[in-house]
This record gives sequence, C-alpha cells and structure tokens, in this order.
Amino acid sequence: MRADLALVGFGNVGRRFVTLLAERRTCLQRDYDLDCRIVGISTRRHRAAFSTGGLDVAAAFDCVSAGRLLPDGDRPVNTAADVIDALGTSDAPLRVLIETTPLTIADGQPAIAHIEAAIDAGCHAITANKGPAAFAYRQLSERARAAGVSFLFEGAVMDGVPIFNLVREAMPAIAIRGFRGVVNSTTNYILSALEDGEEFAPALGAMQAAGIAEADPSLDVDGWDAAAKTAALANVLMAADLNPRGVDRTGIGPETADRARSARARGNRLRLVATASRSISGAIQATVGPVELASDDLLASLRGPANALVLHTDLLGDVAIHQLGGDLTMTAYALMSDLIALRRTAA
Amino acid sequence: MRADLALVGFGNVGRRFVTLLAERRTCLQRDYDLDCRIVGISTRRHRAAFSTGGLDVAAAFDCVSAGRLLPDGDRPVNTAADVIDALGTSDAPLRVLIETTPLTIADGQPAIAHIEAAIDAGCHAITANKGPAAFAYRQLSERARAAGVSFLFEGAVMDGVPIFNLVREAMPAIAIRGFRGVVNSTTNYILSALEDGEEFAPALGAMQAAGIAEADPSLDVDGWDAAAKTAALANVLMAADLNPRGVDRTGIGPETADRARSARARGNRLRLVATASRSISGAIQATVGPVELASDDLLASLRGPANALVLHTDLLGDVAIHQLGGDLTMTAYALMSDLIALRRTAA
Repeated sequence: MRADLALVGFGNVGRRFVTLLAERRTCLQRDYDLDCRIVGISTRRHRAAFSTGGLDVAAAFDCVSAGRLLPDGDRPVNTAADVIDALGTSDAPLRVLIETTPLTIADGQPAIAHIEAAIDAGCHAITANKGPAAFAYRQLSERARAAGVSFLFEGAVMDGVPIFNLVREAMPAIAIRGFRGVVNSTTNYILSALEDGEEFAPALGAMQAAGIAEADPSLDVDGWDAAAKTAALANVLMAADLNPRGVDRTGIGPETADRARSARARGNRLRLVATASRSISGAIQATVGPVELASDDLLASLRGPANALVLHTDLLGDVAIHQLGGDLTMTAYALMSDLIALRRTAA
Repeated sequence: MRADLALVGFGNVGRRFVTLLAERRTCLQRDYDLDCRIVGISTRRHRAAFSTGGLDVAAAFDCVSAGRLLPDGDRPVNTAADVIDALGTSDAPLRVLIETTPLTIADGQPAIAHIEAAIDAGCHAITANKGPAAFAYRQLSERARAAGVSFLFEGAVMDGVPIFNLVREAMPAIAIRGFRGVVNSTTNYILSALEDGEEFAPALGAMQAAGIAEADPSLDVDGWDAAAKTAALANVLMAADLNPRGVDRTGIGPETADRARSARARGNRLRLVATASRSISGAIQATVGPVELASDDLLASLRGPANALVLHTDLLGDVAIHQLGGDLTMTAYALMSDLIALRRTAA
C-alpha cells in the first residue's frame, strides 16, 4: 500500500526519520506492505516543497546542509499549511503528516494547528511533539475519529519506547489508575552529576556542551518538559483533560545540589518524578518535582538518559517500562512505529 | 462476534479466567465486539463436558468445589481430545481452545498435543503453559499459520504483563538481539530470603507453606521453569530453535546461601538470571543461573514476585519491562489479552 508522507519540521528528527525509512524499506514493504514516498517538506529556514510524484530527498538534504532553500517541486507551496493542503489532494491510500516541530510550552502551537489541518484534509497525523497530546488530546482525537483518520504521538514520551502503543495494543481492557515515572533526561543527568558532587551550573553547562540540554534549558530544569509529558500521559491513559499548566510543578536549580548530596549520603537518590493519580472524587492530580527515593526504588537506579514509567493498573498490578538509552534514532523510530500502527488499522 | 471457548485444564487459572470474563463482559462486548461462551471443559479429575449452546458454568464450579464430576452437556465427551473435536464443530465465528494444563518439563506434553488438535480442528489456541512455545514454537506457529488460526501464549512468561504482544504489536520492525531477565518468582523469593540471612531449607519451606512454591519445587529451584521461559522467549523473539534442555542451566540450593550473603555483604545482589544472545556464527546461546549483580543493576532491585526482562534491540537500545506484583488474576488476564488480540486480527 502506498503511503504519501509530508514532513512538517525537517530538523534532526525529521531527517533521521527519512534515512531510517530508507534503511528499513525492504522490511516495511515485505512485513507491512508499506511503500513510503516523501511528497512534501516544510521547514523553518529553507521554505517548503511539494512534488506529487515524490520529492528528491537527497537534494533536500543537500540544500539543508548547505543552508539553501529547498528545490521547487511540481506544486507551489510556501508554508506548512500549503504542504498539508497539497498532501490532502494526493491519491495515495495512506496520506500522512509527519509533524516534528519543536514544542512551544505556552500553548502547544504550531503543532496543534498542523494536526488539525491534516485531519481536516483527510490525512493521518503523526507527531513526535508532546504539545498536541499535552494541550489538546481530547479535541484532536475526537476530530480524528470523526474524520476517520489516526492521530498518533508515540514519540511524545520516552522516545520510541512504546508507552501509548503498549497500552493501546498490548494491554487491552486494562484500566490505568495512575503512574509515576522519570521522563526527562536532562534533569536526570544533572541530578546524577549533583549527587556525584558537581555543582548545578557546571553540570548544566556540561549538558549543554554535550548537546543534551538546550541553549535555553528552562524547559527542562523548570520541569515544563516533564509536565507536558505528564499531561499527555494522563490525558491519553487516564482520560484526563489536563494541560501542562494544570500539573503541580517544581523544577530543579542550584539549591537542589545540597538536597541531592544529602539524599545520597542517606543511601537514597533524588530524582525528578512525575506522577498522576485519581482522587476519590474522580479528579486527576498530576505532579512533577524532585523526590527523594529509597535506593531500591525502581526509579532510583535510573542514571543519565534512562527514563522509566510505572503504571498502576487494575488487573496487572504495577507494570514498569524502562528506556535505558536515548538517541535520535529512537525518536525517529517512534514516528516509524506509529506509521506501521496506522497501516495495520488501515488494512 | 461470538466466541465459543473450550477450556482444557480447569484449575485455579482456568477458573479465574472464567470469572474474569464474566466481570469484564460489558467491556469485552462494547470495546471489542466479543461475546464469549464456554462450550467445553476438560479436567483431570472431574472428567469433561461439552454443550453446543454453552455450559452452565456455575454448576461446573460447584462440581469442582464439591469434588464431583462435571454435569453432562448435550454431547458425550470424555477426554480433552473429545472436547477439542467438539469445539471444531461449533458454528461460532471464533472457536478458541483455552489451554491451562500444568507444564511437563520432559517434553511439554500434553499441552502441545492439545494445541495441535485445536489447530487441526480449525480452532485458535491460547495457552498459559510455557511448554508449547518452549518445545515446539516453530512447528506450532507454522501449523497455525497454514491453518489460518492463531497460536498465542502471553501467559507463558511474566504472567499477563505483555512481552510477546508487546514486541509483536508495539515494537514493529525491531530486531531483538538478546535479552536478560529475572523470570522465576520462587527462586527470587528464596534468594531475597537467603540474603536476609535465612537458610535455604526454611526459606523454601516458607514458600511452600505460603503456596508460592510447589510441593515438588525442583522445577523452580533447579532452574527448569526459567529455562523453559528462556527457550520460549528465544524461540519467539529471536527465531531460535531451542528447547529447555538446550539452555545452559544452573539452579540454586543450600550452597547458594553463602553466595547470596557474601554478595549482599559486598553491596551486590545474587539473582537467578536468564540470558540469550546470538554469537557471530548466528547460533543462539541461552543461560539460566545465579549471577551476582551490582546494586544499581535493574535486575538487582527485584524482590519477591517481581520479574523483569531487558530486551537488547537494534533501534531502541535496551528496553526493560517489569512485573512488580504477581497473582492468579494476572495469568487469567494473559489469556484474556490473547483472546482480544486474536479478535482484533479476525476483524
């Protein structure tokens, strides 16, 4: 089955997704009857391009490397909206938006608008951005259902390690009563360094130098990234209607170093823990903040890029899933696994 | 969609499966269009029964509690084979064998014969027994494929926590290069007790008194249960062609107490670890045995009933899944999740 894909966002994740698709072309065709073509690309700095017959992807990579605009396709497009509109006119049986713009913590835009536009154009939407599920899960999933398309976002939490697909596909008829987890790698790196005796500013600087933390690390250290993931998890797994501002959030800073070291001195570990639970009234409470954990707590052993989520379930007790590594390929794989998931339901 | 089920094995797991189906009847109908009816039961001590229109399940429970034979249905059946044959004549769109006989470590029988009979009768086969996947995965899965039916066994490893369904449904296009895990609860309980200073015999006795270890605990303490699970995992996830005798196996015994305590004195933990890896030649090596683990090893923190499996993957690095509790409901849920999985593919 042919799948025409349009990429909105063509940064590291989007480009790694394209090379991963090429690397796995044979497997995708043989095992999933999935024949993918990149017909559209929209970027922030290199404009946009669309070609009904498929873009010259190698040329697009060259343009981005060289800082040039994308080469013209066979349809004039300028914006993400143009590319999504053009995708809607494709005659492929699967038409899929691959959304990889960066998170805007104020409102989850422009990712939400991109996904709305794709749904309204009759296209499936896959994103690695946590904004849409964190700010607008209920609205977008209902809109997608009404339009008969899928809205998927496995990459929003723990990269490509399956969380949303795990619960949806492999834990049917299970109710999630709550969860706790470590879902932000930058703060986990910093807390590991603090407990080893480093100070906050140099630990953060080392993360930035290594390309792990952003130039503006406030999304991570103020807990916003974890809060967005927590809202997304609560919305999807527990039918909450939260957004990141509804998460009771405490970040980490220079003052955290003492706490991390004294926790360690007591044989414990300080970790930025995300939780959600349902009160007796049915309301969902969600929190993000540094918590001192006993050393045999599952979350205490996580170091550096490792993330984990413990799901409190009705029939399976507590079930945990761990991501032990972390790299670009894992996020790109999240997009690919969503693509395969929607191919399966389109059978 | 109507599903006619025949239960071969009607012990604690089989009976809990029946009550779980009743508890979740509304959810199964509403969310999965699955309307289940128990048409056949075969037991070791209470004979067998089959009724084309569905058995009186409450009466069957009463007979088993009172030590009486099952009440007659509308077809004369004496053996498991009779019940499976009768299931094959049902006109329900889904006809499913639910196999919960105990593991025979010598050869995986009679479970394998039950599953072969079901496949040959055009029925799907679901088992909580690890024997079939440990001794005959390749043969049974090819036979099922040729017959257009499913052979599923989520309960074989880590009860209902998804392992096989996780990899198949939520980790598409991923290659599993190897794994390591703690997959036997009895030995994990005993090792936890040994490192707390108990001796082997009383620790084992306490497990037996609590109903956790079998009267004949050799399957557990000699490592056979873990070896069967390891063979099943390697066969399914890595396309091995192993059986439990092909696993390099070391059990635990009274002599293990010293090792467990001295490991603990060094700050480490002794755990019965199962592993599989592929050598350069492509051959698969599988092991089960006590291994001293550093305290920050993911598997070191597991106590009592907790199990965990770390999958070494090509695209997602190491991914781990943990089962933190363990009870009958989890094994019964494994059967139900397989039933839902095959309903989905039968759409």
